[in-house]
Amino acid sequence: MASSNRQQELTVKPVGFVRNQCKEPILFSQRSGLEMQGAVEDFWQKVREINQMTSEIVIDPAAGDLLNGIDDFSHLLVLYWGHKTSAAGRALQQVHPMGRKDLPLKGVFATCSPARPNPLLMTVVKLQARRDNVLEVANLDAVDQSPVLDIKPYVKDMFPQEGVRTAAWMQKLMEEAKAMAG
Amino acid sequence: MASSNRQQELTVKPVGFVRNQCKEPILFSQRSGLEMQGAVEDFWQKVREINQMTSEIVIDPAAGDLLNGIDDFSHLLVLYWGHKTSAAGRALQQVHPMGRKDLPLKGVFATCSPARPNPLLMTVVKLQARRDNVLEVANLDAVDQSPVLDIKPYVKDMFPQEGVRTAAWMQKLMEEAKAMAG
Repeated sequence: MASSNRQQELTVKPVGFVRNQCKEPILFSQRSGLEMQGAVEDFWQKVREINQMTSEIVIDPAAGDLLNGIDDFSHLLVLYWGHKTSAAGRALQQVHPMGRKDLPLKGVFATCSPARPNPLLMTVVKLQARRDNVLEVANLDAVDQSPVLDIKPYVKDMFPQEGVRTAAWMQKLMEEAKAMAG
Repeated sequence: MASSNRQQELTVKPVGFVRNQCKEPILFSQRSGLEMQGAVEDFWQKVREINQMTSEIVIDPAAGDLLNGIDDFSHLLVLYWGHKTSAAGRALQQVHPMGRKDLPLKGVFATCSPARPNPLLMTVVKLQARRDNVLEVANLDAVDQSPVLDIKPYVKDMFPQEGVRTAAWMQKLMEEAKAMAG
């Protein structure tokens, strides 16, 4: 790239962390690529468990005013750090989606792989309750102790509904998810 | 927080940058809060211009394989760094949304303010074309030269449609946007 300034490392500082019962990621990265923990059926079982699990997002009490008014939204976008992603995982440029060899090798930016150059992971969660600096949420796919970097309100109108095209392999995965994760 | 590990600074490295005709952000942060550039009408005019503008995302050619298969998606989530956000902006805990004093002061995490502790900004863009390591996209609200940190496929099914509740002030803004930005 022309300007070295653009390649400069940037520093983020967690504003909080995740507290839940999910101790290990269901996808993990190795030098050889992305791997799924267990069989495909076990994977979807894990996804179902995650979908039913409640997580807490604990925000630094000194930064509690960041949350003022957040209760007026039913859903939030949570940006967290994939702290279980290895250096080898961050160096991968292509992966089999979900570590599944039956799916074609794809560029990491065409996938939701947690192994990516900057493991900035994002999920839409449902806000169930707020107790001061603690948010109780459903549907957060983060592992326990994941550093939380940012929270944004989920505003449906900002996400296109019409004319959205998705890769065939992703459609297949979404159909599997509907059928198996319930 | 209990563990100092959770508060540890993390390092992200841009994988590319934005190239477009938008040289200055329409919202900027000062010690006193978030400010809008110009009047409300000018703001929506700017938003309209941004919506009609084409941006390029230039990925480091050495990381070009990250993009393999991305053309199978019509829309992408782009995570970029709000490099015009000042240190004072990152310290703000509450802002008037869009810098508008007619809207109530809200916690930054309840808003889409570019002034936030970690200026990790996200937009859903429409992928218009790909030329090797350059993506041509519509609807990217980033300023020229913004560092790009991550790209993910936009999969509509991952974003809830039913039972989504939004703050009244945000609804008001979305209605204004529809009426004025066209």
